[in-house]
Amino acid sequence: MRVVETVQELHRASAAERAAGRRVALVPTMGALHAGHLSLVEIARRRADRVWLSIFVNPTQFGPSEDLTRYPRPRERDLALCRKAGVDLVFAPGVDEIYPPGSQTFVEVTELSRPLCGRSRPVHFRGVATVVTKLLAAARPALAVFGEKDFQQLALIRRLARDLLLDVEIVGGPIVREPDGLALSSRNVHLDPEARTQALALPRALDAAERATAAGEREAATLLGVVRAELAKASRAEIDYAELCDPETLEPAPARLAGPTLLALAVRFGPAAEATAANRPGVRLIDNRLLLAPASPEESS
Amino acid sequence: MRVVETVQELHRASAAERAAGRRVALVPTMGALHAGHLSLVEIARRRADRVWLSIFVNPTQFGPSEDLTRYPRPRERDLALCRKAGVDLVFAPGVDEIYPPGSQTFVEVTELSRPLCGRSRPVHFRGVATVVTKLLAAARPALAVFGEKDFQQLALIRRLARDLLLDVEIVGGPIVREPDGLALSSRNVHLDPEARTQALALPRALDAAERATAAGEREAATLLGVVRAELAKASRAEIDYAELCDPETLEPAPARLAGPTLLALAVRFGPAAEATAANRPGVRLIDNRLLLAPASPEESS
Repeated sequence: MRVVETVQELHRASAAERAAGRRVALVPTMGALHAGHLSLVEIARRRADRVWLSIFVNPTQFGPSEDLTRYPRPRERDLALCRKAGVDLVFAPGVDEIYPPGSQTFVEVTELSRPLCGRSRPVHFRGVATVVTKLLAAARPALAVFGEKDFQQLALIRRLARDLLLDVEIVGGPIVREPDGLALSSRNVHLDPEARTQALALPRALDAAERATAAGEREAATLLGVVRAELAKASRAEIDYAELCDPETLEPAPARLAGPTLLALAVRFGPAAEATAANRPGVRLIDNRLLLAPASPEESS
Repeated sequence: MRVVETVQELHRASAAERAAGRRVALVPTMGALHAGHLSLVEIARRRADRVWLSIFVNPTQFGPSEDLTRYPRPRERDLALCRKAGVDLVFAPGVDEIYPPGSQTFVEVTELSRPLCGRSRPVHFRGVATVVTKLLAAARPALAVFGEKDFQQLALIRRLARDLLLDVEIVGGPIVREPDGLALSSRNVHLDPEARTQALALPRALDAAERATAAGEREAATLLGVVRAELAKASRAEIDYAELCDPETLEPAPARLAGPTLLALAVRFGPAAEATAANRPGVRLIDNRLLLAPASPEESS
């Protein structure tokens, strides 16, 4: 497995793969790899000749009060996982490679950046759009694979690739969950035992909404009531949002659902009573499910 | 000569050239081609195996009060000039190809968009950065050639290519002038005979500043005085700006010049006395010269 740290070297590797007629799939990550990322590597392998994975904790997608510095960076463990998963090349650049001195170019996807996570994280998606544009330009893959847990990010990247006329296929990979249902996230390690238990309220709320729609419920207000009732069972959960929206535009769903609808949740678990806010700043988790969607999510790309 | 109107077909053509190991040079234009554009085609030919030229009047770089609708679009004449100049492929897309329905992705180069033309044309450079990113993604050339008349645009595109980690070389082509010194521009056709004569004040002001620096003058204020005195000889010239600045960052030059310095001019020629503003809205011209620069401009890329 090759580890590349400069853009110039990645450009050369990309040109060589293309000259040899091989299709590269890129899996962009912020590291702290878990089984969710490795499932994306598997999808990449099925669809391409070479699997490349990037590890870059992107500073511009963190707000000033967010967890950039405490975001986990277990580099050697990540590289070992990549090696074991059969990744062909890891791109692990420093910040100056991705943001050269004096850099001042930003990419914005306007409408899709505003709802859901965009409301509480105003600069987040500008950072995501900018770094994804850079990573796709640096690697020039035939396809790139992103997890569906970050559903808004995936919708935005699909839009960005189309709008910027990039010759790349964007593929979504289904959410991977712990045996008890919690969606895998690099941030789960920050949950204290009580919050870890309470975090199951998210998948339970999604399950409850899915059961209700399967039973024929179509009223958005009723479904959101079911969701909020499940979340209310977790005493430390503060709802950032719980919304039903169009899976492509992310616009609010109609009062009566009429087709595939995204149920998206963001919930914050504040510090335990005995911890001060300063030494345990709380953990924000997101999760989602496509309701009324017959096709399997991976095929919907 | 091949004429391509869709992004999909251009992606295929680009992949085929790369698979064949041929280097493509792209010359992005808004059409209304003149000898200035053709000089860029010549530069492209010397540096690449294939010359591609794009013709696209980009709506997002025109402000609401600007001349989008009256911008000249002599398509058949442009194609004939390209054929004669030996262009291999012309990309002439419709607006919906470059801005697909629902498109909402924009590229901004923050600092370089603000001074000079950015002050009077606030949305202009966001439009330029966005369309150039799209054209480079659609064509994926090994190099792209831009005229140095639009010096700020060229500086911004160099910055953008570096910041977005694009694997493309950005090449500047020297300004081409009429025998009497006026820089070629697609907008020159809008000059009435009196304004056409008065427009020579721009190259004369640049010449005067160049003579003064050659004679040893280094005081910015003195040089700008020389420039303004020349421009004042044209009774209908309204100065938008006349500035000395750093050729890379476009930041204002120091009071005493100490190295290569860009002298940049934008001058508006209002309607003749007998014309109403409505039926002859005036013409804004730009021109520039690199002072104290020993190297030839084309080599400075």
